[in-house]
Amino acid sequence: MKIAQVTPLYEAVPPRLYGGTERVVAHLTDALVDLGHDVTLFASADARTRARLVPVRDQAMRLDPAPLKSDLAAHMSQLAEVLDRADRFDVIHFHTDMVHFPFFEGWADKTVTTLHGRLDLKDLAPVYDRWSEFGLVSISDDQRRPLPHANWRATVHHGMPGDLYRFSPRSQGYLAFLGRISPEKRPDRAIEIATRLNKPLKIAAKVDAADRVYWETVIEPLVRGNPLVEFVGEIGDAEKSAFLGGADALLFPIAWPEPFGLVMIEAMACGTPVIAYQWGSVPEVIEEGVTGFIVDDEDEAVAALRRLPDLSRQTVRARFETRFSAHAMARRYEDLYGRLDEAAQPPRLTLAQSA
Amino acid sequence: MKIAQVTPLYEAVPPRLYGGTERVVAHLTDALVDLGHDVTLFASADARTRARLVPVRDQAMRLDPAPLKSDLAAHMSQLAEVLDRADRFDVIHFHTDMVHFPFFEGWADKTVTTLHGRLDLKDLAPVYDRWSEFGLVSISDDQRRPLPHANWRATVHHGMPGDLYRFSPRSQGYLAFLGRISPEKRPDRAIEIATRLNKPLKIAAKVDAADRVYWETVIEPLVRGNPLVEFVGEIGDAEKSAFLGGADALLFPIAWPEPFGLVMIEAMACGTPVIAYQWGSVPEVIEEGVTGFIVDDEDEAVAALRRLPDLSRQTVRARFETRFSAHAMARRYEDLYGRLDEAAQPPRLTLAQSA
Repeated sequence: MKIAQVTPLYEAVPPRLYGGTERVVAHLTDALVDLGHDVTLFASADARTRARLVPVRDQAMRLDPAPLKSDLAAHMSQLAEVLDRADRFDVIHFHTDMVHFPFFEGWADKTVTTLHGRLDLKDLAPVYDRWSEFGLVSISDDQRRPLPHANWRATVHHGMPGDLYRFSPRSQGYLAFLGRISPEKRPDRAIEIATRLNKPLKIAAKVDAADRVYWETVIEPLVRGNPLVEFVGEIGDAEKSAFLGGADALLFPIAWPEPFGLVMIEAMACGTPVIAYQWGSVPEVIEEGVTGFIVDDEDEAVAALRRLPDLSRQTVRARFETRFSAHAMARRYEDLYGRLDEAAQPPRLTLAQSA
Repeated sequence: MKIAQVTPLYEAVPPRLYGGTERVVAHLTDALVDLGHDVTLFASADARTRARLVPVRDQAMRLDPAPLKSDLAAHMSQLAEVLDRADRFDVIHFHTDMVHFPFFEGWADKTVTTLHGRLDLKDLAPVYDRWSEFGLVSISDDQRRPLPHANWRATVHHGMPGDLYRFSPRSQGYLAFLGRISPEKRPDRAIEIATRLNKPLKIAAKVDAADRVYWETVIEPLVRGNPLVEFVGEIGDAEKSAFLGGADALLFPIAWPEPFGLVMIEAMACGTPVIAYQWGSVPEVIEEGVTGFIVDDEDEAVAALRRLPDLSRQTVRARFETRFSAHAMARRYEDLYGRLDEAAQPPRLTLAQSA
């Protein structure tokens, strides 16, 4: 099939450091190429891809040092480029939330839109009502909860390439926390859990400007001078396998409706089980007693960590490969694209758009 | 004429406190009603207007306490409402930068788009190229400088209703600074100028979260314990006349390409002259030696302040009424709308849109 992938322009594809959506787009795109499709990626020029690249900006926006830029303008220019070529594709797959809807009203039946963010925002429902001809993909079933009546076509869990992560048959005796320092990610709980078990904890995380006060007033005082806790800052792909693979478990003590939680499957790819709080996508990603444990509070987390020896790191990796490889993700999207393509073949009833 | 006004949704129309664009839209809309036009305002439900209001959100976004909201989604829903009624209007006047372009491609010849912000942002040029069928209005000639080849139709300076401001025939012996505490507004220069003249300075300004560090490290130390400087915080319309009217002069010591600078004409409406640094719109707004003085540095500002007795506060107010009343602004837009309307009458050549 001839497939267009349309990514947000905030991070490079894949991102140089932090960044979820563009990482998923990068590996989905390459996996679709591996399946034999003719794939075109509309992204900034710093993308690394096996697909045909249409560069729509000189570089990704977040790390662009230009002092003044407009993310709306950048995405509008990108979408104009896609629209100019719309008739060349069988499927146009958007990862850009909703900004493309007014551009592609005439092409909605050959589009797929994956929503990557949380959906409990006040202004969203009227937009997904108004442009209900656009078929949507959720990245977990739980993500749909605030918009149950939107035009959902499938849930497709994220996947990552297995060869990006090194399997660790043995861990090094510490717990790991990886992500962003923020109240919804609850690094304070990770510290409390490690303290109760008297077990070392390594924290690899970025601190956004918006979270600096939380870091300085809540987390840093718990880390400073604490012999159990090591803060290693933000890490890139090259360091992830050692960091995650060396851990007895990844702690994922979130307190928000996480739409997916990429770090859980990155840990699984290294053979590392996950202790996760029951929020958002967690019950869909973690298989209780197989790839980790799902808990509701610190007591349960401590009890779960004592049961880690019951789990097999080989099995954790095997479950990653079955459920969360980039290949598995690409196969599920391929199925969905195929169904669109059938629906779009004549003879068919005219799909009158609602006024 | 049947006229639609489409405002940004960040502040109420007019704003309860700070806010420039929505203040201009409010008074343009009312002045067009006064001129006998049939005006429809697409705004949040907290608008106060003499036009027909189509409420497109329950309240303006910035002061909405909802924790999670999407400004793009809110504006997309608004524009969908406008589009549903597009055939009812002779003119649709947008104040929403560019977000409406993909919606109104079929109606471009009866739209006017006023750009309210600075235009030296990296991503803008390709967008105004791509949608060049949309006629644009600048709020000063200087504002056009980064986009000289855009489809400019007119410059229309802002106006305010004269009865909103009380003329003060006599001042109270202090200098005034009104706006936002930020490095580009240079309140530090205002303090230096007042200090050199040993003259009291009153600062009325909001401090955004983004400018808190600048406030705490640069400005607050200059204000604290300084007997010459009084900081009165953010003020609303009710207090503006007393604050501005009591001043010998407004200090406007900016260091950025200000697209218009509403506070300059608010001071003039009170009869208060303006000492302004030569940036952006300043030479178009201030008449040298009549409504104020235009300066390049602190020495010139101090010298200009010594010449204040040469200026007549009555003349300053009179120049405001001639050049910057809401009525004057509405007349200029009315001219522009009329020219659109003529252009759109048959017989005419088909305006083929570029591909």
